[in-house]
Amino acid sequence: MNKFSFDLLNEDAGCRARRGRVHTRRGIIETPVFMPVGTQGTVKAMYPESLKEIGAQIILANTYHLFLRPGHERVRRLGGLHAFMNWDRPILTDSGGFQVFSLGDLRKIDEDGVRFQSHLDGSSHVLTPESSIAIQEALGADIIMAFDECIPYPSSRDYVAASTERSSRWARRCRLARQVDDGAALFGIVQGGMHQDLRAKSAADLLEIGFEGYAVGGLSVGESAELMYEVMDWTMPLLPKDRPRYVMGVGTPENLVEGVRRGVDMFDCVMPTRNARNGVMFTSFGKVSIKQARYQDDALPLDPECSCYVCRNYSRAYLRHLYQSNEILSSMLNTHHNLHYYQQLMASMRSAIEAGAFEQFRAEFYRKRQTDGAG
Amino acid sequence: MNKFSFDLLNEDAGCRARRGRVHTRRGIIETPVFMPVGTQGTVKAMYPESLKEIGAQIILANTYHLFLRPGHERVRRLGGLHAFMNWDRPILTDSGGFQVFSLGDLRKIDEDGVRFQSHLDGSSHVLTPESSIAIQEALGADIIMAFDECIPYPSSRDYVAASTERSSRWARRCRLARQVDDGAALFGIVQGGMHQDLRAKSAADLLEIGFEGYAVGGLSVGESAELMYEVMDWTMPLLPKDRPRYVMGVGTPENLVEGVRRGVDMFDCVMPTRNARNGVMFTSFGKVSIKQARYQDDALPLDPECSCYVCRNYSRAYLRHLYQSNEILSSMLNTHHNLHYYQQLMASMRSAIEAGAFEQFRAEFYRKRQTDGAG
Repeated sequence: MNKFSFDLLNEDAGCRARRGRVHTRRGIIETPVFMPVGTQGTVKAMYPESLKEIGAQIILANTYHLFLRPGHERVRRLGGLHAFMNWDRPILTDSGGFQVFSLGDLRKIDEDGVRFQSHLDGSSHVLTPESSIAIQEALGADIIMAFDECIPYPSSRDYVAASTERSSRWARRCRLARQVDDGAALFGIVQGGMHQDLRAKSAADLLEIGFEGYAVGGLSVGESAELMYEVMDWTMPLLPKDRPRYVMGVGTPENLVEGVRRGVDMFDCVMPTRNARNGVMFTSFGKVSIKQARYQDDALPLDPECSCYVCRNYSRAYLRHLYQSNEILSSMLNTHHNLHYYQQLMASMRSAIEAGAFEQFRAEFYRKRQTDGAG
Repeated sequence: MNKFSFDLLNEDAGCRARRGRVHTRRGIIETPVFMPVGTQGTVKAMYPESLKEIGAQIILANTYHLFLRPGHERVRRLGGLHAFMNWDRPILTDSGGFQVFSLGDLRKIDEDGVRFQSHLDGSSHVLTPESSIAIQEALGADIIMAFDECIPYPSSRDYVAASTERSSRWARRCRLARQVDDGAALFGIVQGGMHQDLRAKSAADLLEIGFEGYAVGGLSVGESAELMYEVMDWTMPLLPKDRPRYVMGVGTPENLVEGVRRGVDMFDCVMPTRNARNGVMFTSFGKVSIKQARYQDDALPLDPECSCYVCRNYSRAYLRHLYQSNEILSSMLNTHHNLHYYQQLMASMRSAIEAGAFEQFRAEFYRKRQTDGAG
């Protein structure tokens, strides 16, 4: 059994961007990395082989959804999530907290955990730090996330402070609940809302407990991009250099570039997959809404600079036709391209950091977005 | 440019089953063959590469749908349907008649053709034998079907007789409309409803006109399987041995076996793809409804005798989970398996005919379906 570890390979000369390598029991992850989201045991509209083809190194799965359906004990009996979904590379599971707290009136928080009603059938369940860990272990996650509250934005300072304190107590219970020496890692999650002192307190609490990696939660919840970057600016320097850093639920290509620049190693977001299904595509020259009539006779590939399967084989006109016709292949091709775009963006950033040229990369990234490649 | 031709390789010793080879300008088709249906320029939920992986030799596309959206002239400008959809093997297009005649109150027939309103936006259009051929040529079909009426069942004998006569006149106009020596084939379609003499008259009319292949239309329209087989029994012996024979819109695995036994070379049907999206799967031991709760803990592959990508990599429990969760991958995997099943069924029949052992194959085919492999 390989132990979980992190190598910091090099830091960029001009900013905090860092190139690293995460060792997991299911192989290596080169960082900075973007993790496609596979909510219900599948990255929507993608074969696992296609995920490998575009270079996905690790995917995220959602504890809340898999707990309710098909059930974590069922997944365990069927050999774990990797076997169940035919994916042999690392899997990170979230704690279930984010979805449960999003249920609004359907959930009730106390010190022990959260009582909630399923969005599927209204049945009652309880999620606690201990049960969240047990579920993630049953699923067979290689990276397990501590159970916390993703604080809504905006919230009162009092609420943020109390919630963050509770998340720290829950983080300690999660650490204690991880008793199996199975090679999986446990990550703590820094909360503290948009308050610098509360972020610092949260980070200090987590460092005292000790985790294999540290995440920043409570971002991309409606705040401005500037505020998000400010929170990253406060928080990243508080985290140990020799542990991976993960900003949860972020984000746009711009967010990824700005996050990497501030020292973030890991990201996940539904944006490339969800946008794909809505016909919104990411390209080197910016976003493209493929449903627009301007593409109906356009024989060019979606992104002439892209080397992906979709751009090598299909025209914008065909992608528009599939979207207009509500065809499943539309979701398949659009998702393939968008995830490829995100993977290539991360690979480019890794190369730039290795070359000590991240700021040049960043300038070029923004420059291309000011030209209209769609014309 | 390769000319279209058909080689009759051998006939089974014990029945009318025949093994043949169709030469088209885009390559060879080994018969008997099943053609997956790609209604709107995509076989739903399948990458073209996956179609090749399962051995699809030719696909069918629908003239009516592509005429309305994205438009045949647009497809022509974009390099033809093959380039548009990234499929370089043969394509057969239907004439559009079947869909137009299905529109009910939205269409009006006269001797010239059919005036109809689009199901998409209500816009008015006319389809005639001449325009149907022109549309199919613009799409770039390798096999073009004559424009005819697929007669509803049941219909009065008078209606069937008059409609069949008109279809013969339209078939002659289609033949005259095919002026380009482009290597594409034109198939005539035998109508005549469930009347032996009208089928014979229709076949005689078409033979007099002369086509590269002959189809039997107006089957699988609600009649019993026995009546369908009876019509095949009447009609197949009337068709020339040296031309491919195509029964349109058929059918179940049993229908394919019975059709091949009666001398049919080509089939198409939405059944494997549509059923897949509804969770109804074809296996060597019969149909399986994957949504059933009995499969929720079933770690076996869907069909333990199947060698397809899905059966090699996924459990019934996972397929059920995807279906229950309304995941796109459910349609992708189910379609892959069902089309693979159909392709393998045809390959097995081709081998059986080569070995002169079709009746033994057929007996074994039915025997397996009486055992419950799902247990």
